[in-house]
Amino acid sequence: MLRIGIIGAGRIGRVHARSVAAHPQAKLTLIADPMLDSAQEVAQAYGAEATSEANDVFVSDNVDAIIICSPTPLHGDHIVAAAAAGKPALCEKPLAMDSESVAQIRERLEAQGTPNPLVMLGFNRRFDPSFSSIHEAVEAGEIGQLEQLTIISRDPAAPPKEYIAVSGGIFKDMTIHDFDMVRHFLGDIKTVTAVGQNLDPELADTGDFDGVVVTLQNEAGRSATITNSRHCASGYDQRLEAFGSEGALFAENIRPTTVRRSNKHVTDAQEPYLDFFLERYEAAYARELSAFIDAVTDGRVPSPGIEDGAQALRLAEAAEKAAKEGVVVKL
Amino acid sequence: MLRIGIIGAGRIGRVHARSVAAHPQAKLTLIADPMLDSAQEVAQAYGAEATSEANDVFVSDNVDAIIICSPTPLHGDHIVAAAAAGKPALCEKPLAMDSESVAQIRERLEAQGTPNPLVMLGFNRRFDPSFSSIHEAVEAGEIGQLEQLTIISRDPAAPPKEYIAVSGGIFKDMTIHDFDMVRHFLGDIKTVTAVGQNLDPELADTGDFDGVVVTLQNEAGRSATITNSRHCASGYDQRLEAFGSEGALFAENIRPTTVRRSNKHVTDAQEPYLDFFLERYEAAYARELSAFIDAVTDGRVPSPGIEDGAQALRLAEAAEKAAKEGVVVKL
Amino acid sequence: MLRIGIIGAGRIGRVHARSVAAHPQAKLTLIADPMLDSAQEVAQAYGAEATSEANDVFVSDNVDAIIICSPTPLHGDHIVAAAAAGKPALCEKPLAMDSESVAQIRERLEAQGTPNPLVMLGFNRRFDPSFSSIHEAVEAGEIGQLEQLTIISRDPAAPPKEYIAVSGGIFKDMTIHDFDMVRHFLGDIKTVTAVGQNLDPELADTGDFDGVVVTLQNEAGRSATITNSRHCASGYDQRLEAFGSEGALFAENIRPTTVRRSNKHVTDAQEPYLDFFLERYEAAYARELSAFIDAVTDGRVPSPGIEDGAQALRLAEAAEKAAKEGVVVKL
Amino acid sequence: MLRIGIIGAGRIGRVHARSVAAHPQAKLTLIADPMLDSAQEVAQAYGAEATSEANDVFVSDNVDAIIICSPTPLHGDHIVAAAAAGKPALCEKPLAMDSESVAQIRERLEAQGTPNPLVMLGFNRRFDPSFSSIHEAVEAGEIGQLEQLTIISRDPAAPPKEYIAVSGGIFKDMTIHDFDMVRHFLGDIKTVTAVGQNLDPELADTGDFDGVVVTLQNEAGRSATITNSRHCASGYDQRLEAFGSEGALFAENIRPTTVRRSNKHVTDAQEPYLDFFLERYEAAYARELSAFIDAVTDGRVPSPGIEDGAQALRLAEAAEKAAKEGVVVKL
Repeated sequence: MLRIGIIGAGRIGRVHARSVAAHPQAKLTLIADPMLDSAQEVAQAYGAEATSEANDVFVSDNVDAIIICSPTPLHGDHIVAAAAAGKPALCEKPLAMDSESVAQIRERLEAQGTPNPLVMLGFNRRFDPSFSSIHEAVEAGEIGQLEQLTIISRDPAAPPKEYIAVSGGIFKDMTIHDFDMVRHFLGDIKTVTAVGQNLDPELADTGDFDGVVVTLQNEAGRSATITNSRHCASGYDQRLEAFGSEGALFAENIRPTTVRRSNKHVTDAQEPYLDFFLERYEAAYARELSAFIDAVTDGRVPSPGIEDGAQALRLAEAAEKAAKEGVVVKL
Repeated sequence: MLRIGIIGAGRIGRVHARSVAAHPQAKLTLIADPMLDSAQEVAQAYGAEATSEANDVFVSDNVDAIIICSPTPLHGDHIVAAAAAGKPALCEKPLAMDSESVAQIRERLEAQGTPNPLVMLGFNRRFDPSFSSIHEAVEAGEIGQLEQLTIISRDPAAPPKEYIAVSGGIFKDMTIHDFDMVRHFLGDIKTVTAVGQNLDPELADTGDFDGVVVTLQNEAGRSATITNSRHCASGYDQRLEAFGSEGALFAENIRPTTVRRSNKHVTDAQEPYLDFFLERYEAAYARELSAFIDAVTDGRVPSPGIEDGAQALRLAEAAEKAAKEGVVVKL
Repeated sequence: MLRIGIIGAGRIGRVHARSVAAHPQAKLTLIADPMLDSAQEVAQAYGAEATSEANDVFVSDNVDAIIICSPTPLHGDHIVAAAAAGKPALCEKPLAMDSESVAQIRERLEAQGTPNPLVMLGFNRRFDPSFSSIHEAVEAGEIGQLEQLTIISRDPAAPPKEYIAVSGGIFKDMTIHDFDMVRHFLGDIKTVTAVGQNLDPELADTGDFDGVVVTLQNEAGRSATITNSRHCASGYDQRLEAFGSEGALFAENIRPTTVRRSNKHVTDAQEPYLDFFLERYEAAYARELSAFIDAVTDGRVPSPGIEDGAQALRLAEAAEKAAKEGVVVKL
Repeated sequence: MLRIGIIGAGRIGRVHARSVAAHPQAKLTLIADPMLDSAQEVAQAYGAEATSEANDVFVSDNVDAIIICSPTPLHGDHIVAAAAAGKPALCEKPLAMDSESVAQIRERLEAQGTPNPLVMLGFNRRFDPSFSSIHEAVEAGEIGQLEQLTIISRDPAAPPKEYIAVSGGIFKDMTIHDFDMVRHFLGDIKTVTAVGQNLDPELADTGDFDGVVVTLQNEAGRSATITNSRHCASGYDQRLEAFGSEGALFAENIRPTTVRRSNKHVTDAQEPYLDFFLERYEAAYARELSAFIDAVTDGRVPSPGIEDGAQALRLAEAAEKAAKEGVVVKL
């Protein structure tokens, strides 16, 4: 039974707390949050202890592995501290706010003698049953050579402007997931083109794009296209198409039920998509946690890791430059 | 170039006239209708001659084969006359109003020395691209042994009461197509159960059912279920499922386009089904005509024939008895 | 926190144990099974106590409500005992092996002064998200008057012959769920027709049908058709179509992912259906338990209840008579 | 009855000949091709006259309107000649091999005093029932403001290398249709980015891309993405998604039938897509011809016209530059 400590009792920390509680090989023992009330609320629900000090998690004899759900600017500190304590960590994405910060994290890890800590990055979509099934089929050669990857990823509605202001921008906040997925399928990327959109008048003064289209290409010429929007009337639009020389694979949206309706206006109409990531990726979060627990239990380096977080961030920065300056960025 | 004469310039006669005109191996030469204006209108459109006398078609030197689109009570007379004239005929369904009349037709054919004339019955659905593709796959053993056939067949809206009054009832008028399809897939039927419905208050005084569910079983125990309704809000609902020991085949409804729409209420909503049989079975009528022309050209007996018309009528009578008397009818 | 005792630690007992453990308002406290090892295994996993005596569950001060997962012949004894103990019970289906046994259960309940105990019958499909969504839409009048209900229900593979021998026959073992669904939508049934099939040579000597088609009709003439098979190559085939005067609603099958594949042979091909009831109806079991817990907590009589179990059994007996004797059964 | 002359009796000329023959308001009277045999073959089939001289079509008293199906380099000459003869013309795409040639055509038209002739460009996809239904819905505001257009367009298999060598390259030969579609939905384009792929070793020495991804953006920031490939295992892959602020519209692929198949490997598998453009866009060609005939009959300037052909070509040239030089092209 792996004893888990969680840093951060916010929305995503609670998702992980519930997944841990439901996991047969893990147990939540400690949860830390500067807002002690919040930590206590989660602790109580799952029979764990609470603290307001993140540091308690690193030093506790009652914690075998750590899930880092703190705000992004603290990810580096917490990864470094977990590595220093010799405890494996699952860290939420993004790894940091920029590539410079990533370099600093690596320097600190190097400096303290833990250059390759057991850190997994929370790119949960790699663990989505549909996306991972497609990834396996592609790796198995089912569609021959993968040639064109097409990702549609749209949120149901824009977050509050206050959130956008500190989000690091759409590429680091939203597209980051898609960049990781592109790397998962295509490996290293050579060129990035991107266009940004400011279509929603409500978001005009945020200075951030509310829609983007990014095209990436690897050395072998295989391409990936990402289409993002901050809003989608029908819910959380999450699709992927892998087109290859021998066939194609599609991951379609998920609805709450399989009901279809027909009347004099429409036929076989389905329901709106599952509304947002907690529902849509519920299975992905659980499978991600299992992969982390399995790796820790087996003493393996979990994947995706720090390098994946660093590379996704690099693509986000390249896309931002491409969109803002109207250039093609070569990596 | 096969020279075709058509008897009857009504709705279905015009469908065939157009199919003949579009067919590379056939040519409409003569059309007969007691309403001469109507015959002339069609004749003019396709460069044919018109007459008010059906008999002219049988005797004309300019007619190689005949399409009989006269009212059902005249089908027998016209089949017998075509046989006497030695001309192949494609006769619209149903063959007659009842099995007794069918017996009389056969006696007359026998008496005039043409017991097996070249007559094809217009069960057009056998020629529908989807249904015939499924039939071929079943015959080829793709789903192992066929075990359960499920047919849904609903008209978009009930015909006028005046039509229902002379239609012979829903089983002979509407289900007759489905009975033929069942025989096409299952062969001879041993038992028939049926329930009738009177759900539409508008049709209450017609004395006819407005919905029926019929279950048929052949000697080997294989079953077929037919669900009919005189109305369907979404259009002409025409589906078939062939379930077998190794798999299943489904024929879905057809829409005018492939457009799907999503908004905050629905996702991937399709359009209403094609509205009625002329649109829905346009390809089936053309393929039926081709099969007739090919058989005539090759001197083969076309299929389905008189026996198929007789057997479908027998099933209609059995189902009517089953539904009205609340019994299981054994054949 | 409702303290739950479970009688029976077999497959379905374990499903409920897990659902109880995951439910925020309930807690498993005691589990009974004549095979004490089995009970202990479940007890340990969820921090409960174990016993080999069902009676301990009825008398325990630590049990507020009971889930009866014993073999069908014991359902009556356990319902009567729970009622005598004043404890609400959720009893698995079917209520009993025959209507006579149901009558005896009712007499015993009457005799001990508990004619209307808080008993819920485990017709889990009523709680399936898709089926219940359709039921709500029908009740809300979305499709006008419901006219024709069509249920397809096929198991992925036949159970062992030993199971079939004691199952009570396909109508009580398998169709019973569909009979309850028909009553859920149509209410009381007036006539039953049914055909049985013996198509699988492997099952020829069980004396039981391996496929059935049942048509039911209520007083108002509304119909329901049930098509069952003991096997289906593509998995657990569970579909429902509610056709009404203004539209139709369809519940489609569920697959493990949303992946579709295209190659030179097929396009948009989906995966086989979820394999069997534990996976397919996982959400239904959880929602059923919630409904039971809510009713108990609120002191309401839970639904579906004993009368529903009795009526479904009555329909099973009617269908068996219809299929075996080749008659229409009027109720 | 509009008397039509066709220049060119090749594949596309024959498509139009058949459409003309089937059209109730038109009649093929003359067909020209340097290979007189070919022209005669078509002429005979439809009761028209044949000639080896294109010029005969322009001067014939028996021709009211002309369909230009000559090789692309001759389009300019034939458009100018038709204009000089005062005869409306439907000219196949592309208008010319490059923008310079377009400028010359315009100069010649200007010089001969026919600056705005009645010329329609054969962008047949605008007339596809699904695409045009989506266009109408977008124009009607059904999805609010159009924000992101996504076009997938893949041929079933690459043409012969000899064809590619004289095709003008993938952007002018294949993407040209998609550029017109983008303009149809988004109007004038401001920026073009594109990546080219050389993935098929068979085509390596053609010097042409075998796959491309193009992203376009108009002044208002609305985007369009085009994904092309010279091959697709499943057939002719033709899809379009229009995403807007209030919803989305999708045009799906077309199959020969509606059959779906299930077995132990797949469920609801559909057939490969219609194989190529003559089948896929059969309805589009017919509707295009009708639009031309209606415009001519009414004396209106048909649409799309020369300017549309010129602009599509301009986008093709911009995309080619973007892909070859790795730059963003601003128009």
